[in-house]
Amino acid sequence: MKLIKATAEIKKDMKKHRFRGRSIGFVPTMGTLHQGHLSLVEQSKKENNITVVSIFVNPTQFAPGEDFAAYPRDFETDKKALRELGVDILFLPGGREIYPDGYSTYVEVEKPGQVLCGRTRPTHFRGVTTVVLKLFNIVTPDNAYFGRKDAQQAVIIKKMVKDLDLDVTIRTLPIVRAADGLALSSRNTYLSRDEREAALALSRGLRKAEQFVGDGLRKAADIKQIVKKELEIGELIKIDYIEVVSLTTLEPFDAGNKDAEIDVNNTLTAAAIWVGKTRLIDNFILGDI
Amino acid sequence: MKLIKATAEIKKDMKKHRFRGRSIGFVPTMGTLHQGHLSLVEQSKKENNITVVSIFVNPTQFAPGEDFAAYPRDFETDKKALRELGVDILFLPGGREIYPDGYSTYVEVEKPGQVLCGRTRPTHFRGVTTVVLKLFNIVTPDNAYFGRKDAQQAVIIKKMVKDLDLDVTIRTLPIVRAADGLALSSRNTYLSRDEREAALALSRGLRKAEQFVGDGLRKAADIKQIVKKELEIGELIKIDYIEVVSLTTLEPFDAGNKDAEIDVNNTLTAAAIWVGKTRLIDNFILGDI
Repeated sequence: MKLIKATAEIKKDMKKHRFRGRSIGFVPTMGTLHQGHLSLVEQSKKENNITVVSIFVNPTQFAPGEDFAAYPRDFETDKKALRELGVDILFLPGGREIYPDGYSTYVEVEKPGQVLCGRTRPTHFRGVTTVVLKLFNIVTPDNAYFGRKDAQQAVIIKKMVKDLDLDVTIRTLPIVRAADGLALSSRNTYLSRDEREAALALSRGLRKAEQFVGDGLRKAADIKQIVKKELEIGELIKIDYIEVVSLTTLEPFDAGNKDAEIDVNNTLTAAAIWVGKTRLIDNFILGDI
Repeated sequence: MKLIKATAEIKKDMKKHRFRGRSIGFVPTMGTLHQGHLSLVEQSKKENNITVVSIFVNPTQFAPGEDFAAYPRDFETDKKALRELGVDILFLPGGREIYPDGYSTYVEVEKPGQVLCGRTRPTHFRGVTTVVLKLFNIVTPDNAYFGRKDAQQAVIIKKMVKDLDLDVTIRTLPIVRAADGLALSSRNTYLSRDEREAALALSRGLRKAEQFVGDGLRKAADIKQIVKKELEIGELIKIDYIEVVSLTTLEPFDAGNKDAEIDVNNTLTAAAIWVGKTRLIDNFILGDI
């Protein structure tokens, strides 16, 4: 595994690979890799000649007061895991490499970036799309891999790729969960034992709602109510949002009509909660991203 | 000359050319081509194996109430001129081809986009950078050509290319002027005979200021004053702005200090005026874009 820190160097490498007709798979990450990330890497290895992973804790997707400084970093463990999976190139740029002095260009996918997590974190997705576009331009992948835990992120990146006529295929893979049901997240390390216990209500509520939908429940408001009830049991949880939206537009089904039914082939049920100071998200999807 | 209207088709063509190792030159235009545009095409022909010209009157760079509908269109004359110059591909996309229903992604170069013309036309450069990025992604040029009449546009596009790690070289060429001194612009067709006469004060004032700088004048405020005096003689002219700014940052030299001197290797003196309902811009540059 080749470790590269400079943009100019990886660009030169990628040009060589493209010139030789090799397909390129890319997994952009913020490090502190868990099995969710690693499942993306494994998929990229299967589908491409060359697999590139980037680790960059991207400052522009954190707002002031969010956990940029505290975000866990564990490069040594990450490197070891990626080497074992046979990753070809690990791109590890410094902050000044991605955002040099005077940097001032931003990409925004306006509509789907302003709902769900975008309401609580209004500059978050602008930071995500900006860094992902830059990384796509640097790595020039044929395929890029994203986890479905960040479903809104995947929808937004797919929309950016379509709108900007980029030549990259976005592949998304299922949420990977711990044995207790909690969706894997680098932020889970923030949780105390009690908080983790409380946080399980999130996956439990979503699973219950999914089962009800499997049994024929169709009203968006009812689906939300099932998740809400589960989340209201514990005391440590504060609900950020629970929404049942179109997977394509991210518009809530019950925005204009409280009796509205979902489209069983195109629905994202997503929730975000605070457990103490930690914000967690989870979802279930009907249809394809 | 091949005429292409569909994005998918030109993308396929460009892939072929790249695969064969041909260098690609690109001249994006809004049509109604004058000798300014054609000088860019001639330069591209000299420097590349394949020259692509696009004609697309880009709605997102016009604000409501601006002249999008009235903007002159003369495809037949344009086609003839481009064929005579030996252009390889003319890309003529329709509006829905570039901005399909539900389009919502925009690119913004924040700082240099908010001064000069960006103050009068706050959404203009966002529209320019968005369409230029899309066209770059579609055409994948090695070199792209822009006129120095739109100096701020050239500075902003160069910044976008640098910030987003794009692999295209931006080449700028000098302003082409009519015999009477007026900088060529598709919008000159809007002018009545009297208005055109009045408009000449713009190039005259800038030329006078440039001569004074050649003779040793260095104070930014004085340079502006020379242009201003010339523009105030006629009655048909309304000044939008006169600014003397750094060519790199577009920051005015005299922002904090009215006695500030220019950098003779890095200065843009730019002005915009209204002549009746027509808005015209012109400039002179010390240094390189």
